[in-house]
Amino acid sequence: MRTVDLIHRKREGEELSPEEITLLVNGYTRGEIPDYQMSSFLMAVCWQGMTDREVSALTECMLLSGERVDLSAVPGTKVDKHSTGGVGDKTSLIAAPLAASAGAVVPMISGRGLGYTGGTLDKLEAIPGFQTNLTIEAFLSQLQQHKLAFIGQTAQVAPADGKLYALRDSTATVESIPLIASSIMAKKLAVGLDAIVLDVKVGSGAFMKRQIDARRLAQMMVGIGRRMDKKVQALITDMNQPLGFAIGNALEIMEVSQTLQNAGPVDLTRLSLELAARMIHLGKVTDTIEEAREVAQARLLDGSGYRKFKEVIAAQGGNPQVMDRFELLPNATGMREIYSPRAGYVSAVEAELIGQASTMIGAGRDLKEDAIDPAVGVILEVKTGQKVESGGVLCRIYYTGEDHVDEAAELVEDAFRISQQAPEDRELILEVVG
Amino acid sequence: MRTVDLIHRKREGEELSPEEITLLVNGYTRGEIPDYQMSSFLMAVCWQGMTDREVSALTECMLLSGERVDLSAVPGTKVDKHSTGGVGDKTSLIAAPLAASAGAVVPMISGRGLGYTGGTLDKLEAIPGFQTNLTIEAFLSQLQQHKLAFIGQTAQVAPADGKLYALRDSTATVESIPLIASSIMAKKLAVGLDAIVLDVKVGSGAFMKRQIDARRLAQMMVGIGRRMDKKVQALITDMNQPLGFAIGNALEIMEVSQTLQNAGPVDLTRLSLELAARMIHLGKVTDTIEEAREVAQARLLDGSGYRKFKEVIAAQGGNPQVMDRFELLPNATGMREIYSPRAGYVSAVEAELIGQASTMIGAGRDLKEDAIDPAVGVILEVKTGQKVESGGVLCRIYYTGEDHVDEAAELVEDAFRISQQAPEDRELILEVVG
Repeated sequence: MRTVDLIHRKREGEELSPEEITLLVNGYTRGEIPDYQMSSFLMAVCWQGMTDREVSALTECMLLSGERVDLSAVPGTKVDKHSTGGVGDKTSLIAAPLAASAGAVVPMISGRGLGYTGGTLDKLEAIPGFQTNLTIEAFLSQLQQHKLAFIGQTAQVAPADGKLYALRDSTATVESIPLIASSIMAKKLAVGLDAIVLDVKVGSGAFMKRQIDARRLAQMMVGIGRRMDKKVQALITDMNQPLGFAIGNALEIMEVSQTLQNAGPVDLTRLSLELAARMIHLGKVTDTIEEAREVAQARLLDGSGYRKFKEVIAAQGGNPQVMDRFELLPNATGMREIYSPRAGYVSAVEAELIGQASTMIGAGRDLKEDAIDPAVGVILEVKTGQKVESGGVLCRIYYTGEDHVDEAAELVEDAFRISQQAPEDRELILEVVG
Repeated sequence: MRTVDLIHRKREGEELSPEEITLLVNGYTRGEIPDYQMSSFLMAVCWQGMTDREVSALTECMLLSGERVDLSAVPGTKVDKHSTGGVGDKTSLIAAPLAASAGAVVPMISGRGLGYTGGTLDKLEAIPGFQTNLTIEAFLSQLQQHKLAFIGQTAQVAPADGKLYALRDSTATVESIPLIASSIMAKKLAVGLDAIVLDVKVGSGAFMKRQIDARRLAQMMVGIGRRMDKKVQALITDMNQPLGFAIGNALEIMEVSQTLQNAGPVDLTRLSLELAARMIHLGKVTDTIEEAREVAQARLLDGSGYRKFKEVIAAQGGNPQVMDRFELLPNATGMREIYSPRAGYVSAVEAELIGQASTMIGAGRDLKEDAIDPAVGVILEVKTGQKVESGGVLCRIYYTGEDHVDEAAELVEDAFRISQQAPEDRELILEVVG
């Protein structure tokens, strides 16, 4: 079978066999199939989609394409949590310590942020001394001792995904539900997890703008997991406004500390607890999700999640004192307040614009190579549904250099919509899939 | 504007500006945009199509990408005829001499056959001595003297089209109406024609299987012509069964000779006369198409089309005696008859299968590099609608080597459908566009 015939069949909407998908992906990874054929195939996938059987074959090829982490030496059910990316989303740093403190084994393999969404590794590295480039031995040993360890994605895990992702990035083939689903799942399944809790974001600040697309992505990832005998559950959650109040790496670490001490924002606390409960349940600490919710709540209230996170910070070379003394974290040198032009209700806080403003002043990166400034970001003072006075503070921009602050302020001003009627309440957790 | 953003906008179904299309095509032709971005763009075009404005911009870029032939030294309105390719389609060799003998100036720039459809150049080269690689000077001088000259497409004309076509061929992006339309029109318009008569084939033996697609292609090419102030008319014609009885290069030259002497097949004669009439009309020899039809008919009956073709054969180095003495043409060494398995009516003669059988024994080529055998091919004895007896001859296969003859015979047997009811009559000329 010639490659061009496989591309042709995909563009005609036909299903390829697992063997044909394997030929394509392995041929491409080995350099036998050129970029120009693969990019045309990828665009045909964006057009015609993939069946569950095709996407499972693609995932399997990619996860088998490189090194695999063997977690079998670590006793217990290993459960990870993954978010499709949002603005102000620091739930991993709250849910994972809560789940680990309840007894789940949580090998967190995280990525860096790109565009306006933040990455867990970037947030952790705002903590002075924190190391994410552990050796596999150190990672396994920390997991055994503390039940929780954070590590970065390495180029040796699922290299086919890395090569495909770079091609997708330059050929406008990133937005494709099967390609996104297989990319996420290949990296997760290459590291020997037993269960995964997914947080699929939907809304203006998320990759998926429509709930129907988010649902399809969630269903596809749950299906891939099922076919590989892994337990996978997905929450579909709102990302129209940022999660919590803090956006920016060190600012988010401060909010994590407050939330783990049960003094955090309501939305962030609620979602983190539900994610933790699902991890506790899939991690076989409890038999039912109801029990798991009680356990997660208890671990928050008794401070054991908070202590677990400090313990892990110390284990990975960071200074756990930052959780109490925020002046030990990188701090911005300048601050600008943004005021409401009139009295009314906040009817929207556009997450994408807030994310873009933060990226613009250095909190995120546009290109993989860009350096980020851990100190800068935005703190919201009000969120959707709250009342504001004319001239009241909407948010504060924290910066270290004056460059781009004016532009960022304009974006942030645009992000807030003030109206005379109170907006309808919006659900935070929209659906559960799996 | 980054290339990836242009690809993205096309995949989202947005219209690109003429400037953006120019950036893409010129960037690609100069090697600044890599194959893998262009192939992904091309697949997005297969998916989302192109507007008339986009396809005109694409055509203009390609025709400006290389050398242009200046026909202004030749007086008169220059009119060409182009077919999208069919089995047994030798109308160019009949219509062009008829139109030229009536006074139209006909610079025929022709291609070679690929796959199961034949090419005009291949048919001409079955005539011993016939040269198609004229210099531009010789081409112009022959046009002035004889009003008709045949020349091959050169790599210097519309090189962007050549580069894009090679990429499309290996990335399953050949079948796209705007890409086909712009490829045909760029090559035609780069040579300074005033008018073009198009024969868009539809049916099982054509590239376009559905009339709606053929109509869209015809409309698009007519629109491109209109935007460049060229007169373009398109006939949409049936290609479910081969045109005429002969398939194979020398066999088709014999049928051309018979038809120019008004002793050819009815369907071939009828279509050739209509194409010639349209060329005569667009070539401004007559004011109305009705007059043009009378002129074409008269030129057939008085033998002046026949004499014109012999004159042009001689001018291009060929032996004009082949038109009367077929033994001077390459002749096959073997012949096999195919018999009807039962009595009944011929309800179909699948053009694609007949074309494939001819290609298999050497009449056509699968790859551009393949040599062809001018002597071989198929002569149909019956066509759709005719009655056959059980054991009656359906067709004869002419070959020079035994290889593949058995396979070809099987294909030919499959091509004939014999049924008890007479099939409904099918129109040959289905529509006129433009």
